Amino acid sequence: MKITTRRAITRYDSAGMTSIEDTLVEEFPLTIYINDVEFATLVCSPEYLEELVVGFLASEGVIRHFNEIESINLDDRGGFCHIHLFREVVTDHFTYSKRVLGSCCGKSRQFYFQNDAETTKTSMSRTTLTPSACISLMQEMQSSSMVFKKTGGIHNASLGTKDGAFLHRGDIGRHNALDKLYGHCLRNRISVKDKVLIFSGRISSEVLTKAAKIGVGIVLSKSAPTNLAIKMAEDLNITAVGFIRGDSFNIYSHPWRIEKEFSY
Amino acid sequence: MKITTRRAITRYDSAGMTSIEDTLVEEFPLTIYINDVEFATLVCSPEYLEELVVGFLASEGVIRHFNEIESINLDDRGGFCHIHLFREVVTDHFTYSKRVLGSCCGKSRQFYFQNDAETTKTSMSRTTLTPSACISLMQEMQSSSMVFKKTGGIHNASLGTKDGAFLHRGDIGRHNALDKLYGHCLRNRISVKDKVLIFSGRISSEVLTKAAKIGVGIVLSKSAPTNLAIKMAEDLNITAVGFIRGDSFNIYSHPWRIEKEFSY
Repeated sequence: MKITTRRAITRYDSAGMTSIEDTLVEEFPLTIYINDVEFATLVCSPEYLEELVVGFLASEGVIRHFNEIESINLDDRGGFCHIHLFREVVTDHFTYSKRVLGSCCGKSRQFYFQNDAETTKTSMSRTTLTPSACISLMQEMQSSSMVFKKTGGIHNASLGTKDGAFLHRGDIGRHNALDKLYGHCLRNRISVKDKVLIFSGRISSEVLTKAAKIGVGIVLSKSAPTNLAIKMAEDLNITAVGFIRGDSFNIYSHPWRIEKEFSY
Repeated sequence: MKITTRRAITRYDSAGMTSIEDTLVEEFPLTIYINDVEFATLVCSPEYLEELVVGFLASEGVIRHFNEIESINLDDRGGFCHIHLFREVVTDHFTYSKRVLGSCCGKSRQFYFQNDAETTKTSMSRTTLTPSACISLMQEMQSSSMVFKKTGGIHNASLGTKDGAFLHRGDIGRHNALDKLYGHCLRNRISVKDKVLIFSGRISSEVLTKAAKIGVGIVLSKSAPTNLAIKMAEDLNITAVGFIRGDSFNIYSHPWRIEKEFSY
Protein backbone atom coordinates (compact mmCIF):
# COMPACT_ATOMS: atom_id res chain seq x y z
CA MET A 1 0.00 0.00 0.00
CA LYS A 2 1.11 3.54 -0.66
CA ILE A 3 1.96 5.76 2.28
CA THR A 4 1.68 8.98 0.27
CA THR A 5 -0.63 10.21 -2.47
CA ARG A 6 -0.57 13.00 -5.06
CA ARG A 7 -3.24 15.67 -4.88
CA ALA A 8 -4.10 18.92 -6.68
CA ILE A 9 -3.78 21.95 -4.41
CA THR A 10 -3.68 25.75 -4.67
CA ARG A 11 -0.31 27.36 -3.96
CA TYR A 12 -0.02 31.00 -2.87
CA ASP A 13 3.27 32.90 -3.13
CA SER A 14 4.56 36.23 -4.40
CA ALA A 15 3.36 35.30 -7.90
CA GLY A 16 -0.24 34.87 -6.65
CA MET A 17 -2.37 31.70 -6.72
CA THR A 18 -1.41 28.72 -8.88
CA SER A 19 -2.67 25.14 -9.15
CA ILE A 20 0.02 22.56 -8.42
CA GLU A 21 0.30 18.90 -7.47
CA ASP A 22 1.55 18.07 -3.99
CA THR A 23 2.43 14.86 -2.14
CA LEU A 24 0.37 14.21 1.00
CA VAL A 25 0.95 11.52 3.57
CA GLU A 26 -1.79 8.88 4.03
CA GLU A 27 -3.54 8.06 7.31
CA PHE A 28 -4.85 4.53 7.56
CA PRO A 29 -7.19 3.26 10.30
CA LEU A 30 -6.34 -0.27 11.38
CA THR A 31 -8.71 -2.04 13.78
CA ILE A 32 -7.19 -4.86 15.81
CA TYR A 33 -9.28 -7.81 16.99
CA ILE A 34 -7.84 -10.16 19.59
CA ASN A 35 -9.47 -13.59 19.72
CA ASP A 36 -12.44 -12.09 17.80
CA VAL A 37 -12.96 -9.17 20.20
CA GLU A 38 -12.35 -5.59 18.98
CA PHE A 39 -9.37 -4.26 20.92
CA ALA A 40 -8.17 -0.95 19.43
CA THR A 41 -8.05 1.17 16.28
CA LEU A 42 -4.68 2.64 15.34
CA VAL A 43 -4.44 5.45 12.79
CA CYS A 44 -1.15 4.83 11.01
CA SER A 45 0.93 4.92 7.84
CA PRO A 46 0.00 1.76 5.90
CA GLU A 47 3.28 -0.14 5.78
CA TYR A 48 4.80 -2.78 8.06
CA LEU A 49 1.33 -3.31 9.55
CA GLU A 50 2.01 -6.73 11.04
CA GLU A 51 5.11 -5.42 12.79
CA LEU A 52 3.02 -2.51 14.05
CA VAL A 53 0.38 -4.81 15.53
CA VAL A 54 2.95 -7.10 17.16
CA GLY A 55 4.84 -4.14 18.66
CA PHE A 56 1.63 -2.49 19.84
CA LEU A 57 0.39 -5.63 21.58
CA ALA A 58 3.75 -6.05 23.31
CA SER A 59 3.77 -2.37 24.34
CA GLU A 60 0.31 -2.73 25.78
CA GLY A 61 1.37 -5.79 27.74
CA VAL A 62 -0.99 -8.16 25.88
CA ILE A 63 1.91 -10.36 24.74
CA ARG A 64 5.53 -10.70 25.84
CA HIS A 65 6.88 -12.92 23.07
CA PHE A 66 6.06 -13.40 19.42
CA ASN A 67 5.39 -17.11 19.94
CA GLU A 68 2.28 -16.32 22.01
CA ILE A 69 0.59 -15.49 18.70
CA GLU A 70 -1.22 -18.36 16.98
CA SER A 71 -2.15 -16.43 13.82
CA ILE A 72 -2.18 -12.94 12.30
CA ASN A 73 -4.69 -12.23 9.52
CA LEU A 74 -4.31 -8.81 7.99
CA ASP A 75 -7.04 -7.40 5.75
CA ASP A 76 -5.27 -4.33 4.48
CA ARG A 77 -8.09 -3.31 2.15
CA GLY A 78 -10.65 -3.05 4.95
CA GLY A 79 -8.15 -2.05 7.60
CA PHE A 80 -8.63 -4.99 9.96
CA CYS A 81 -6.15 -7.24 11.69
CA HIS A 82 -7.36 -10.42 13.41
CA ILE A 83 -4.96 -11.80 15.98
CA HIS A 84 -5.46 -15.15 17.62
CA LEU A 85 -3.44 -15.92 20.72
CA PHE A 86 -2.88 -19.36 22.17
CA ARG A 87 -4.53 -18.23 25.40
CA GLU A 88 -7.44 -16.13 26.59
CA VAL A 89 -6.61 -12.51 27.45
CA VAL A 90 -8.45 -9.62 29.03
CA THR A 91 -9.36 -7.28 26.17
CA ASP A 92 -11.24 -4.72 28.22
CA HIS A 93 -9.91 -1.27 27.36
CA PHE A 94 -10.22 -0.06 30.88
CA THR A 95 -7.75 -2.58 32.22
CA TYR A 96 -5.13 -1.15 29.89
CA SER A 97 -5.84 2.54 30.27
CA LYS A 98 -6.74 2.71 33.95
CA ARG A 99 -4.61 5.09 35.94
CA VAL A 100 -2.50 3.46 38.62
CA LEU A 101 -3.16 5.02 42.00
CA GLY A 102 -0.54 3.06 43.86
CA SER A 103 1.02 4.11 47.12
CA CYS A 104 4.34 4.69 45.40
CA CYS A 105 4.50 8.41 46.05
CA GLY A 106 7.56 8.05 48.25
CA LYS A 107 9.51 6.76 45.28
CA SER A 108 10.45 8.76 42.26
CA ARG A 109 9.05 6.32 39.73
CA GLN A 110 5.53 7.08 38.61
CA PHE A 111 3.54 5.16 36.09
CA TYR A 112 0.20 6.49 35.17
CA PHE A 113 -1.22 3.50 33.37
CA GLN A 114 -1.54 0.02 34.71
CA ASN A 115 -0.05 -1.75 31.71
CA ASP A 116 3.01 0.52 31.83
CA ALA A 117 3.71 -0.43 35.43
CA GLU A 118 3.72 -4.08 34.39
CA THR A 119 5.77 -3.88 31.19
CA THR A 120 8.37 -1.15 31.71
CA LYS A 121 11.86 -2.41 32.48
CA THR A 122 14.88 -0.71 34.04
CA SER A 123 17.67 -0.72 31.47
CA MET A 124 20.63 -2.99 32.17
CA SER A 125 22.45 -1.86 29.01
CA ARG A 126 26.16 -1.03 29.31
CA THR A 127 26.43 0.25 25.72
CA THR A 128 28.18 3.60 25.38
CA LEU A 129 28.51 6.03 22.45
CA THR A 130 30.97 8.73 21.48
CA PRO A 131 29.58 12.23 20.76
CA SER A 132 30.44 11.82 17.08
CA ALA A 133 28.47 8.53 16.95
CA CYS A 134 25.43 10.35 18.44
CA ILE A 135 25.68 12.98 15.72
CA SER A 136 26.25 10.56 12.86
CA LEU A 137 23.39 8.23 13.95
CA MET A 138 21.04 11.24 13.90
CA GLN A 139 22.28 12.22 10.43
CA GLU A 140 21.77 8.66 9.23
CA MET A 141 18.18 8.56 10.53
CA GLN A 142 17.38 11.88 8.91
CA SER A 143 18.82 10.98 5.53
CA SER A 144 16.86 7.70 5.55
CA SER A 145 13.52 9.51 5.68
CA MET A 146 12.70 10.53 2.14
CA VAL A 147 8.98 10.64 2.91
CA PHE A 148 9.51 13.39 5.45
CA LYS A 149 11.37 15.43 2.89
CA LYS A 150 8.51 15.05 0.41
CA THR A 151 5.57 15.58 2.76
CA GLY A 152 6.78 16.98 6.08
CA GLY A 153 4.43 14.65 7.89
CA ILE A 154 6.23 11.57 9.19
CA HIS A 155 7.87 10.68 12.50
CA ASN A 156 10.98 8.60 12.03
CA ALA A 157 12.65 6.11 14.33
CA SER A 158 15.71 3.95 13.86
CA LEU A 159 17.63 1.34 15.81
CA GLY A 160 21.39 1.30 15.66
CA THR A 161 24.68 0.53 17.31
CA LYS A 162 27.84 2.61 17.56
CA ASP A 163 28.65 1.38 14.05
CA GLY A 164 25.50 2.75 12.45
CA ALA A 165 21.73 2.38 12.13
CA PHE A 166 20.35 -0.96 10.88
CA LEU A 167 16.54 -0.52 10.97
CA HIS A 168 14.40 2.46 9.96
CA ARG A 169 10.65 2.90 10.33
CA GLY A 170 8.41 5.90 9.73
CA ASP A 171 4.81 6.63 10.61
CA ILE A 172 2.44 9.57 10.93
CA GLY A 173 2.05 8.47 14.58
CA ARG A 174 5.15 8.78 16.74
CA HIS A 175 4.16 5.74 18.81
CA ASN A 176 3.52 3.66 15.72
CA ALA A 177 7.06 4.24 14.42
CA LEU A 178 8.41 2.90 17.71
CA ASP A 179 5.98 -0.03 17.75
CA LYS A 180 7.06 -1.01 14.22
CA LEU A 181 10.68 -1.22 15.39
CA TYR A 182 9.63 -3.21 18.46
CA GLY A 183 7.45 -5.59 16.42
CA HIS A 184 10.26 -6.22 13.93
CA CYS A 185 12.69 -7.10 16.73
CA LEU A 186 10.20 -9.39 18.49
CA ARG A 187 9.32 -11.21 15.29
CA ASN A 188 12.94 -11.66 14.25
CA ARG A 189 14.23 -12.30 17.80
CA ILE A 190 16.66 -9.40 17.61
CA SER A 191 18.02 -8.45 21.04
CA VAL A 192 17.51 -4.75 21.66
CA LYS A 193 19.37 -4.40 24.96
CA ASP A 194 22.64 -3.27 23.41
CA LYS A 195 20.98 -1.07 20.76
CA VAL A 196 20.38 2.69 20.50
CA LEU A 197 17.01 4.25 19.65
CA ILE A 198 17.14 7.29 17.34
CA PHE A 199 13.94 9.34 17.12
CA SER A 200 12.83 12.43 15.19
CA GLY A 201 10.21 13.59 17.70
CA ARG A 202 10.07 14.94 21.20
CA ILE A 203 10.91 12.61 24.11
CA SER A 204 7.61 12.60 26.02
CA SER A 205 6.90 10.33 29.00
CA GLU A 206 5.08 7.99 26.59
CA VAL A 207 8.03 7.81 24.20
CA LEU A 208 10.42 7.21 27.11
CA THR A 209 8.12 4.51 28.49
CA LYS A 210 8.03 2.86 25.09
CA ALA A 211 11.84 2.98 24.85
CA ALA A 212 12.00 1.28 28.25
CA LYS A 213 9.57 -1.41 27.11
CA ILE A 214 11.61 -2.02 23.96
CA GLY A 215 14.64 -2.26 26.23
CA VAL A 216 17.20 0.22 24.88
CA GLY A 217 19.67 2.06 27.11
CA ILE A 218 20.18 5.18 24.98
CA VAL A 219 17.55 7.39 23.29
CA LEU A 220 18.75 10.01 20.80
CA SER A 221 16.32 12.72 19.70
CA LYS A 222 16.37 15.74 17.44
CA SER A 223 13.85 17.44 19.72
CA ALA A 224 13.25 18.42 23.33
CA PRO A 225 12.32 16.04 26.15
CA THR A 226 9.74 16.78 28.83
CA ASN A 227 10.60 17.01 32.50
CA LEU A 228 8.51 13.93 33.37
CA ALA A 229 10.28 11.91 30.66
CA ILE A 230 13.64 12.85 32.16
CA LYS A 231 12.53 11.91 35.68
CA MET A 232 11.52 8.51 34.29
CA ALA A 233 14.79 8.20 32.34
CA GLU A 234 16.76 8.88 35.55
CA ASP A 235 14.84 6.17 37.32
CA LEU A 236 14.84 3.60 34.51
CA ASN A 237 18.60 3.98 33.92
CA ILE A 238 18.14 5.32 30.37
CA THR A 239 20.45 7.93 28.79
CA ALA A 240 18.33 10.59 27.08
CA VAL A 241 20.06 12.83 24.55
CA GLY A 242 18.09 15.61 22.88
CA PHE A 243 18.40 18.58 20.54
CA ILE A 244 20.97 16.81 18.36
CA ARG A 245 21.45 19.53 15.76
CA GLY A 246 24.59 20.13 13.80
CA ASP A 247 27.56 19.25 16.02
CA SER A 248 25.94 19.80 19.40
CA PHE A 249 23.39 18.17 21.72
CA ASN A 250 22.12 18.01 25.31
CA ILE A 251 22.45 15.02 27.66
CA TYR A 252 19.53 14.96 30.09
CA SER A 253 20.11 11.77 32.08
CA HIS A 254 22.84 9.20 32.81
CA PRO A 255 25.60 11.01 30.91
CA TRP A 256 28.05 8.18 31.70
CA ARG A 257 26.91 6.38 28.52
CA ILE A 258 28.22 9.25 26.36
CA GLU A 259 32.01 8.97 26.27
CA LYS A 260 34.27 11.95 26.52
CA GLU A 261 36.35 12.40 23.37
CA PHE A 262 39.83 13.80 23.75
CA SER A 263 41.77 15.57 21.04
CA TYR A 264 45.57 15.38 21.23
CA MET B 1 1.07 25.62 38.41
CA LYS B 2 4.23 25.96 36.39
CA ILE B 3 4.29 24.54 32.88
CA THR B 4 8.09 24.50 32.67
CA THR B 5 10.88 23.70 35.09
CA ARG B 6 14.62 24.37 35.29
CA ARG B 7 16.96 21.40 35.31
CA ALA B 8 20.73 20.79 35.28
CA ILE B 9 21.87 19.08 32.08
CA THR B 10 25.10 18.29 30.23
CA ARG B 11 25.69 20.26 27.05
CA TYR B 12 28.02 18.99 24.30
CA ASP B 13 29.37 21.31 21.61
CA SER B 14 32.68 22.14 19.97
CA ALA B 15 34.04 23.22 23.39
CA GLY B 16 33.34 19.75 24.83
CA MET B 17 31.00 18.88 27.73
CA THR B 18 29.71 21.55 30.12
CA SER B 19 27.07 21.59 32.84
CA ILE B 20 24.29 24.09 32.17
CA GLU B 21 20.72 24.78 33.29
CA ASP B 22 17.94 24.20 30.77
CA THR B 23 14.19 24.81 30.75
CA LEU B 24 12.06 21.69 30.25
CA VAL B 25 8.34 21.55 29.67
CA GLU B 26 6.21 19.76 32.29
CA GLU B 27 3.83 16.85 31.61
CA PHE B 28 0.93 16.59 34.02
CA PRO B 29 -1.42 13.60 34.24
CA LEU B 30 -5.01 14.67 34.89
CA THR B 31 -7.59 11.97 35.61
CA ILE B 32 -11.20 12.88 34.90
CA TYR B 33 -14.07 11.33 36.87
CA ILE B 34 -17.62 11.79 35.60
CA ASN B 35 -20.33 11.30 38.22
CA ASP B 36 -17.71 9.48 40.36
CA VAL B 37 -16.66 7.04 37.60
CA GLU B 38 -13.09 7.23 36.19
CA PHE B 39 -13.39 8.30 32.56
CA ALA B 40 -9.96 9.20 31.13
CA THR B 41 -6.45 10.37 31.98
CA LEU B 42 -5.04 13.21 29.91
CA VAL B 43 -1.32 13.98 29.96
CA CYS B 44 -1.15 17.76 29.55
CA SER B 45 0.53 21.06 30.34
CA PRO B 46 -0.85 22.13 33.73
CA GLU B 47 -2.65 25.37 32.92
CA TYR B 48 -6.26 26.11 31.95
CA LEU B 49 -7.19 22.67 33.25
CA GLU B 50 -10.91 23.34 33.68
CA GLU B 51 -11.14 24.62 30.10
CA LEU B 52 -9.28 21.51 28.99
CA VAL B 53 -11.73 19.19 30.75
CA VAL B 54 -14.79 21.03 29.42
CA GLY B 55 -13.41 21.04 25.86
CA PHE B 56 -12.41 17.38 26.07
CA LEU B 57 -15.86 16.28 27.28
CA ALA B 58 -17.51 18.24 24.47
CA SER B 59 -15.10 16.77 21.90
CA GLU B 60 -15.87 13.29 23.15
CA GLY B 61 -19.60 13.94 22.87
CA VAL B 62 -20.22 13.59 26.62
CA ILE B 63 -21.67 17.13 26.83
CA ARG B 64 -22.92 19.59 24.26
CA HIS B 65 -23.29 22.70 26.40
CA PHE B 66 -21.53 24.06 29.45
CA ASN B 67 -24.78 24.21 31.42
CA GLU B 68 -25.01 20.40 31.45
CA ILE B 69 -22.27 20.51 34.09
CA GLU B 70 -23.47 20.68 37.70
CA SER B 71 -20.01 21.06 39.27
CA ILE B 72 -16.28 20.88 38.48
CA ASN B 73 -13.88 20.11 41.30
CA LEU B 74 -10.26 20.30 40.30
CA ASP B 75 -7.56 18.88 42.57
CA ASP B 76 -4.50 20.16 40.77
CA ARG B 77 -2.06 18.80 43.36
CA GLY B 78 -3.20 15.21 42.90
CA GLY B 79 -4.14 15.62 39.25
CA PHE B 80 -7.83 14.76 39.54
CA CYS B 81 -10.90 16.48 38.18
CA HIS B 82 -14.35 15.44 39.40
CA ILE B 83 -17.17 16.44 37.10
CA HIS B 84 -20.80 16.05 38.08
CA LEU B 85 -23.38 16.30 35.33
CA PHE B 86 -27.09 16.92 35.85
CA ARG B 87 -27.85 13.60 34.14
CA GLU B 88 -26.50 10.07 33.94
CA VAL B 89 -24.11 9.35 31.06
CA VAL B 90 -22.49 6.27 29.61
CA THR B 91 -18.86 6.38 30.73
CA ASP B 92 -17.76 3.13 29.14
CA HIS B 93 -14.59 3.74 27.16
CA PHE B 94 -15.60 1.39 24.45
CA THR B 95 -18.67 3.39 23.49
CA TYR B 96 -16.42 6.33 22.77
CA SER B 97 -13.54 4.61 21.01
CA LYS B 98 -15.40 1.92 19.07
CA ARG B 99 -14.80 2.02 15.37
CA VAL B 100 -17.83 2.78 13.27
CA LEU B 101 -18.43 0.07 10.71
CA GLY B 102 -21.35 1.73 9.03
CA SER B 103 -22.52 1.03 5.50
CA CYS B 104 -21.45 4.51 4.43
CA CYS B 105 -18.82 3.38 1.99
CA GLY B 106 -20.67 4.86 -0.96
CA LYS B 107 -20.19 8.31 0.50
CA SER B 108 -16.90 10.09 0.86
CA ARG B 109 -17.29 10.87 4.54
CA GLN B 110 -15.69 8.39 6.85
CA PHE B 111 -15.62 8.57 10.60
CA TYR B 112 -13.67 5.97 12.39
CA PHE B 113 -14.94 6.52 15.88
CA GLN B 114 -18.53 6.45 17.02
CA ASN B 115 -18.40 9.68 19.03
CA ASP B 116 -16.92 11.53 16.04
CA ALA B 117 -19.81 10.50 13.84
CA GLU B 118 -22.20 12.00 16.37
CA THR B 119 -20.43 15.28 17.16
CA THR B 120 -18.74 16.41 13.94
CA LYS B 121 -20.57 19.18 12.10
CA THR B 122 -20.36 20.40 8.51
CA SER B 123 -19.18 24.01 8.57
CA MET B 124 -21.73 26.66 7.60
CA SER B 125 -19.20 29.47 8.00
CA ARG B 126 -19.04 32.13 5.28
CA THR B 127 -15.98 33.85 6.77
CA THR B 128 -13.22 34.59 4.25
CA LEU B 129 -9.61 35.73 4.69
CA THR B 130 -7.09 37.53 2.52
CA PRO B 131 -3.70 35.86 1.98
CA SER B 132 -2.02 38.57 4.04
CA ALA B 133 -4.43 37.87 6.94
CA CYS B 134 -3.49 34.16 6.79
CA ILE B 135 0.18 35.09 7.04
CA SER B 136 -0.23 37.67 9.81
CA LEU B 137 -2.46 35.37 11.93
CA MET B 138 0.25 32.70 11.76
CA GLN B 139 2.91 35.24 12.75
CA GLU B 140 0.72 36.36 15.65
CA MET B 141 0.27 32.80 16.90
CA GLN B 142 3.97 32.10 16.69
CA SER B 143 5.03 35.26 18.49
CA SER B 144 2.54 34.50 21.30
CA SER B 145 4.24 31.24 22.16
CA MET B 146 7.18 32.13 24.38
CA VAL B 147 7.21 28.66 25.94
CA PHE B 148 7.95 27.07 22.60
CA LYS B 149 10.90 29.38 22.13
CA LYS B 150 12.28 28.40 25.53
CA THR B 151 11.66 24.65 25.42
CA GLY B 152 10.79 23.56 21.89
CA GLY B 153 8.09 21.32 23.29
CA ILE B 154 4.67 22.95 23.02
CA HIS B 155 1.89 22.81 20.43
CA ASN B 156 0.16 26.14 20.03
CA ALA B 157 -3.35 26.95 18.89
CA SER B 158 -5.15 30.26 18.55
CA LEU B 159 -8.58 31.49 17.56
CA GLY B 160 -8.90 34.67 15.54
CA THR B 161 -10.80 36.69 12.99
CA LYS B 162 -9.55 38.59 9.97
CA ASP B 163 -8.65 41.40 12.40
CA GLY B 164 -6.31 39.29 14.52
CA ALA B 165 -6.06 36.47 17.06
CA PHE B 166 -7.93 36.85 20.35
CA LEU B 167 -7.25 33.60 22.24
CA HIS B 168 -4.01 31.59 22.56
CA ARG B 169 -3.49 28.24 24.26
CA GLY B 170 -0.48 25.93 24.36
CA ASP B 171 -0.03 22.35 25.48
CA ILE B 172 2.42 19.48 25.11
CA GLY B 173 -0.51 17.57 23.56
CA ARG B 174 -1.80 18.88 20.24
CA HIS B 175 -5.36 17.82 21.05
CA ASN B 176 -5.23 19.43 24.46
CA ALA B 177 -4.37 22.84 22.99
CA LEU B 178 -7.49 22.59 20.79
CA ASP B 179 -9.66 21.35 23.67
CA LYS B 180 -8.55 24.31 25.82
CA LEU B 181 -9.75 26.71 23.12
CA TYR B 182 -13.01 24.79 22.78
CA GLY B 183 -13.59 24.69 26.56
CA HIS B 184 -12.96 28.42 26.85
CA CYS B 185 -15.50 29.20 24.14
CA LEU B 186 -18.13 26.86 25.62
CA ARG B 187 -17.71 28.27 29.11
CA ASN B 188 -17.85 31.86 27.94
CA ARG B 189 -20.53 31.27 25.28
CA ILE B 190 -18.27 32.58 22.51
CA SER B 191 -19.59 31.67 19.06
CA VAL B 192 -16.87 29.97 17.02
CA LYS B 193 -18.65 29.68 13.68
CA ASP B 194 -17.17 32.85 12.20
CA LYS B 195 -13.70 32.30 13.71
CA VAL B 196 -10.42 30.98 12.30
CA LEU B 197 -8.32 28.27 13.95
CA ILE B 198 -4.54 28.75 13.80
CA PHE B 199 -2.42 25.73 14.71
CA SER B 200 1.30 25.01 14.99
CA GLY B 201 1.09 21.28 14.29
CA ARG B 202 0.21 19.00 11.42
CA ILE B 203 -3.43 18.79 10.27
CA SER B 204 -4.20 15.12 10.94
CA SER B 205 -7.68 13.62 10.61
CA GLU B 206 -8.03 13.96 14.38
CA VAL B 207 -7.12 17.65 14.33
CA LEU B 208 -9.50 18.26 11.42
CA THR B 209 -12.27 16.38 13.22
CA LYS B 210 -11.66 18.49 16.31
CA ALA B 211 -11.81 21.68 14.24
CA ALA B 212 -15.16 20.51 12.84
CA LYS B 213 -16.46 19.81 16.35
CA ILE B 214 -15.36 23.26 17.52
CA GLY B 215 -17.15 24.60 14.46
CA VAL B 216 -14.62 26.75 12.58
CA GLY B 217 -14.64 27.14 8.79
CA ILE B 218 -10.91 27.84 8.27
CA VAL B 219 -7.89 26.00 9.70
CA LEU B 220 -4.44 27.58 9.26
CA SER B 221 -1.36 25.46 9.97
CA LYS B 222 2.38 25.89 9.83
CA SER B 223 2.73 22.21 8.93
CA ALA B 224 1.53 19.60 6.44
CA PRO B 225 -1.94 18.00 6.40
CA THR B 226 -2.60 14.32 5.78
CA ASN B 227 -4.59 13.07 2.82
CA LEU B 228 -7.39 11.72 5.03
CA ALA B 229 -7.68 15.09 6.81
CA ILE B 230 -8.10 16.82 3.44
CA LYS B 231 -10.75 14.34 2.31
CA MET B 232 -12.64 15.12 5.51
CA ALA B 233 -12.11 18.88 5.06
CA GLU B 234 -13.57 18.65 1.55
CA ASP B 235 -16.60 16.88 2.88
CA LEU B 236 -17.11 19.00 6.02
CA ASN B 237 -16.82 22.26 4.05
CA ILE B 238 -13.66 23.36 5.89
CA THR B 239 -10.87 25.38 4.25
CA ALA B 240 -7.51 23.83 5.19
CA VAL B 241 -4.41 25.98 4.66
CA GLY B 242 -0.98 24.51 5.44
CA PHE B 243 2.74 25.21 5.22
CA ILE B 244 2.29 28.88 6.06
CA ARG B 245 5.93 29.91 6.04
CA GLY B 246 7.23 33.34 5.19
CA ASP B 247 4.95 34.83 2.54
CA SER B 248 3.63 31.61 1.02
CA PHE B 249 1.24 28.77 1.83
CA ASN B 250 -0.82 25.91 0.33
CA ILE B 251 -4.62 25.76 0.18
CA TYR B 252 -5.77 22.15 0.32
CA SER B 253 -9.58 22.42 0.35
CA HIS B 254 -12.36 24.93 -0.33
CA PRO B 255 -10.06 27.69 -1.62
CA TRP B 256 -13.07 30.03 -2.05
CA ARG B 257 -12.62 31.20 1.54
CA ILE B 258 -9.18 32.65 0.69
CA GLU B 259 -9.74 35.85 -1.28
CA LYS B 260 -7.67 36.79 -4.26
CA GLU B 261 -5.71 39.98 -3.69
CA PHE B 262 -5.15 42.25 -6.64
CA SER B 263 -2.33 44.75 -7.01
CA TYR B 264 -2.99 47.71 -9.25
